[in-house]
Amino acid sequence: MTIVYTPKPPYYAVIFTSIKTSNDEGYEEMAELMVALAKQQDGFLGIESARNEIGITVSYWKDLESIRNWKNNVDHQIAQKKGQQYWYKAYKTRIAKVDRDYGFEK
Amino acid sequence: MTIVYTPKPPYYAVIFTSIKTSNDEGYEEMAELMVALAKQQDGFLGIESARNEIGITVSYWKDLESIRNWKNNVDHQIAQKKGQQYWYKAYKTRIAKVDRDYGFEK
Repeated sequence: MTIVYTPKPPYYAVIFTSIKTSNDEGYEEMAELMVALAKQQDGFLGIESARNEIGITVSYWKDLESIRNWKNNVDHQIAQKKGQQYWYKAYKTRIAKVDRDYGFEK
Repeated sequence: MTIVYTPKPPYYAVIFTSIKTSNDEGYEEMAELMVALAKQQDGFLGIESARNEIGITVSYWKDLESIRNWKNNVDHQIAQKKGQQYWYKAYKTRIAKVDRDYGFEK
């Protein structure tokens, strides 16, 4: 896991913030599978993820169509359903357009 | 730390992704101070944060002017400088406009 090297803006971010249930059964495998699958999608630019009390996963995309396609991907939809049933107590998904970015590196 | 209850979009997100150095001296205190200070700023809507290998902090704001004011806040600027000197190996800041959001709660 590292900081994603995204192209020059504009591009899009999906900010997924979640609180897990205590049920971890099958969660890690599914999370890894979904990252592998997202990487195969047209327009996918990268993903950043961290979790303590809450989990934050930000995926970056070329355009809104890529995000829509990923949301509607059949395997992803199964994962979303399982997420609601078993793994997440609550989550929030935010679709945002990145207009500006800057960074620092030692 | 919980999922921020943001108003109806549009609003703005500052996605701050970072990799720490091994130097933690003064870091936690400063991070807490900056959150307390951010909460006092006009246009601040909330903040979500998690860290494992990378840290992701997303703060939410009413408009771009609030973000600009916060970036230029004198105490925040001191923290930013110390961050570059001591605490961060690398970071990336992305300014994004949230156009759509949806959530789930059990």
